[in-house]
Amino acid sequence: MSSVVETRKTSPSQNAAPKPKKAEKEEVPADINIPDNYVAWTLKSQKPRPPITWDNLLQNLQWVSLAVLTITPSIAIYGFFTHKLRWETFLWSVIYYFITGLGITAGYHRLWAHRSYNASKPLQYFLAIAGTGAVEGSIKWWCRGHRAHHRYTDTDLDPYNAHMGFWYSHIGWMILKPRYKPGVADVSDLSKNSVIRWQHRCYIWLIIGIGFLLPTAVAGLGWGDWKGGFFFAGAARLCFVHHSTFCVNSLAHWLGEAPFDDKHTPRDHFVTALVTVGEGYHNFHHQFPMDYRNAIRWYQYDPTKWFIWVCSSLGLASHLKIFPDNEVKKGQLTMQLKKLRETQEGLVWAPPVEDMPVISWESFQEQASKRPLIVVAGFIHDVSDFLDEHPGGRHLLVKYIGRDATTAFFGGVYDHSNAAHNLLSMKRVGILHGGTQHGLQDKSIPPAQRLRIARY
Amino acid sequence: MSSVVETRKTSPSQNAAPKPKKAEKEEVPADINIPDNYVAWTLKSQKPRPPITWDNLLQNLQWVSLAVLTITPSIAIYGFFTHKLRWETFLWSVIYYFITGLGITAGYHRLWAHRSYNASKPLQYFLAIAGTGAVEGSIKWWCRGHRAHHRYTDTDLDPYNAHMGFWYSHIGWMILKPRYKPGVADVSDLSKNSVIRWQHRCYIWLIIGIGFLLPTAVAGLGWGDWKGGFFFAGAARLCFVHHSTFCVNSLAHWLGEAPFDDKHTPRDHFVTALVTVGEGYHNFHHQFPMDYRNAIRWYQYDPTKWFIWVCSSLGLASHLKIFPDNEVKKGQLTMQLKKLRETQEGLVWAPPVEDMPVISWESFQEQASKRPLIVVAGFIHDVSDFLDEHPGGRHLLVKYIGRDATTAFFGGVYDHSNAAHNLLSMKRVGILHGGTQHGLQDKSIPPAQRLRIARY
Ligand code: HEM
Ligand code: HEM
Ligand SMILES: [Fe+2]
Ligand SMILES: [Fe+2]
Ligand SMILES: [Fe+2]
Ligand SMILES: [Fe+2]
Repeated sequence: MSSVVETRKTSPSQNAAPKPKKAEKEEVPADINIPDNYVAWTLKSQKPRPPITWDNLLQNLQWVSLAVLTITPSIAIYGFFTHKLRWETFLWSVIYYFITGLGITAGYHRLWAHRSYNASKPLQYFLAIAGTGAVEGSIKWWCRGHRAHHRYTDTDLDPYNAHMGFWYSHIGWMILKPRYKPGVADVSDLSKNSVIRWQHRCYIWLIIGIGFLLPTAVAGLGWGDWKGGFFFAGAARLCFVHHSTFCVNSLAHWLGEAPFDDKHTPRDHFVTALVTVGEGYHNFHHQFPMDYRNAIRWYQYDPTKWFIWVCSSLGLASHLKIFPDNEVKKGQLTMQLKKLRETQEGLVWAPPVEDMPVISWESFQEQASKRPLIVVAGFIHDVSDFLDEHPGGRHLLVKYIGRDATTAFFGGVYDHSNAAHNLLSMKRVGILHGGTQHGLQDKSIPPAQRLRIARY
Repeated sequence: MSSVVETRKTSPSQNAAPKPKKAEKEEVPADINIPDNYVAWTLKSQKPRPPITWDNLLQNLQWVSLAVLTITPSIAIYGFFTHKLRWETFLWSVIYYFITGLGITAGYHRLWAHRSYNASKPLQYFLAIAGTGAVEGSIKWWCRGHRAHHRYTDTDLDPYNAHMGFWYSHIGWMILKPRYKPGVADVSDLSKNSVIRWQHRCYIWLIIGIGFLLPTAVAGLGWGDWKGGFFFAGAARLCFVHHSTFCVNSLAHWLGEAPFDDKHTPRDHFVTALVTVGEGYHNFHHQFPMDYRNAIRWYQYDPTKWFIWVCSSLGLASHLKIFPDNEVKKGQLTMQLKKLRETQEGLVWAPPVEDMPVISWESFQEQASKRPLIVVAGFIHDVSDFLDEHPGGRHLLVKYIGRDATTAFFGGVYDHSNAAHNLLSMKRVGILHGGTQHGLQDKSIPPAQRLRIARY
């Protein structure tokens, strides 16, 4: 028995709850008695399985997954070399790719794992059957893992922890025995669902029927291409659906932007959406997992959302959940401010007022005879390096050396741009004692420093 | 004598300075004795010419400009209907459009009006000659107006004041006698330049030679198309160059974005750049007029900038001026913050802490028996509308009614997203007396409120 299971025995949540009977147990949320410090405690005290080495590799392989994930593409490749791909079969394979893909994305994922909408019984049966055709395990098993993935994203309790690397989160987690047990996740709601129970019961037969017999039979009975149906609509199509789904765990945690939050690895990218039937706006999805959408803009590619929306228009789905727009916008705003704050921190600003000497009018006069000093809005500026650069000409600056140019600068002679005012502030060398006029307080702040990103 | 001139007589700047002799006058900056309140004073006290009506229209037309601006397109149109356009002539017309266009943009505008770089004598002669071919007045006259345009943008002292409407700033200001005299602008630097003086002297002959004879002769001697040269490389090309330049005063103050500052009308737009040989990034240009660039990104269309750059590579130009990048970025940052601040102000935020009642633990207990209240990070939250919406399930919320869920919420059970924390803050109804734990102060600010755009 592995150390993982031993650890679990002494986990506080297991000790706290009296053991219920099997049927009853399924109906009670798995995390009903979860202690307050479950995550930190488990991460700290759970001993991982020993690392995988070349020596223990064979004992650490999950043979069933390995078989499915290697035999399917082998059959497909064999097919490509030995059988001509007919266009009808090609078309049917693509269609069947989308049907079984939607079974996973609209069914397994958005409906059952995230309860992001309600589906009528007919739609549920359709999605359960289509999803079975993707051969990715039963709904219950799949959702158990996926909920743990969301609940413990990027930690050792996340079964497809993206920090383990691209290939591990793509496929390694299925082929290798995991080092850690996935964290507790409740699927008691699914155990109560008759469609899910039916699928779980008949799973093996459904796989064979929907995964292989059906696509083969359609091509065979439809246009006599039995072999093509098996090779392409069966095996090749399945291989594509597999890696399409796997990309949600690998590519979607790796490629793209984080417009809603960057605490964790999930990212938004159009390419990911393209290869995953619309699941590529994964940064949004991890922030707002109970939203039936992944893409919130009409021009983004999210056919799963479109499918759900059409179903709801037809009365087959209802209660499509949307996270309040106000809160979605907050996330975007925060991320944009974060970027702009970096810009803000990276720029050079006017010297801080606190650090500047306060200089009397007499002293200013005296020093202005040695270097070109000009007063504007209570500040003394040294314009040495600017005399010959001034777009308004040297003569206008020279004229104001040792004088107050506030009125002239702020529109009397020329209504300087905000950029000029910003530049002016960079030349501050002192504060004129008693030099701040009433009503000009706002002029003492350069325009670029009026709006500032502050941290609380 | 018009009222404008009368007003000017009593203007303080004119009275202050003793009248210099003509030649001497040209060498002294026109604004050397400009008073501190020149702009406000002039705008207030200058009486405009009476409004133009149908009755006084004829007296208010500027006949020379009107003639040039109507006869040129008439000749071009006549040519299109009576003479076949040969491809050599077409190509030559396009090339000549760019040559004369660059004369204006790289010469008149960026070199002489804005001194944004230094040009060697040969380049100056080339630009002066090419610019003459655009038939837009002498360098001195043109720069006088353009400097006033920059100095008094969007006011009555701006000769092409965009607030007078699109057509006025495009062409009206030339055809109609202006209601106001343009504000003072200094061009004494140009009066000292021998190339400019030469052009001014020979202007009429140069127009005829470069504007019409040269383009006609090239086509005539080159491929025997004298008439085509006159109609197309002469008149039609000139008409295009005219309206191309005029677009800088109209379209560029009307179409597009203001990424650097929105105090005035100038705007950035690719389309404007396309039709003006690169002068379309006009928002940038009005902020940083002495920058030899209009477009700062390599992928933006600014052939005038490319031309100047090539000239400097060839040693024909030098001292290409660039406004400090630090200051350019400040402008962009301010504009972005301005937009985001609108978003920030448009969102609904957590109720302000100052307005919330402080509630004792006992009172919290009592009230929690009537409605679902949960404490997190020292705040009491009412989760009535969220019990059935909670993605983690109703049971976890119910468990914490009347209790402190801080540890559970912040990772003990589930490390909630920033979005969840933001949403939580919206449900605040009170502050728990003495409920703020040490070390949790940062948790009392929802993530979206940690970075805020503040106004100073
Ligand atoms: C040391 C302080 C000054 C700085 C940093 C400064 C900066 C600038 C800058 C950057 C411009 C370019 C246009 C713009 O961005 O608005 C400009 C133009 C101008 N400045 Fe100043 N300026 C200063 C002082 C003055 C003073 C004291 C006067 C007048 C008495 C003045 C008169 C002008 C005029 C008339 C122009 C317009 C030039 C044109 O567009 O032809 N400046 N100044
Ligand atoms: C009233 C305060 C609460 C609010 C507003 C809230 C909000 C949310 C939200 C928005 C999510 C979706 C995922 C995310 O955005 O992070 C979520 C998930 C979750 N919440 Fe809460 N929550 C609250 C209280 C609690 C408490 C007290 C617990 C635990 C004792 C809890 C446990 C969970 C769990 C386990 C999930 C993960 C569900 C999954 O991904 O399968 N929540 N919560
Ligand atoms: Fe994920
Ligand atoms: Fe998900
Ligand atoms: Fe302009
Ligand atoms: Fe300009």
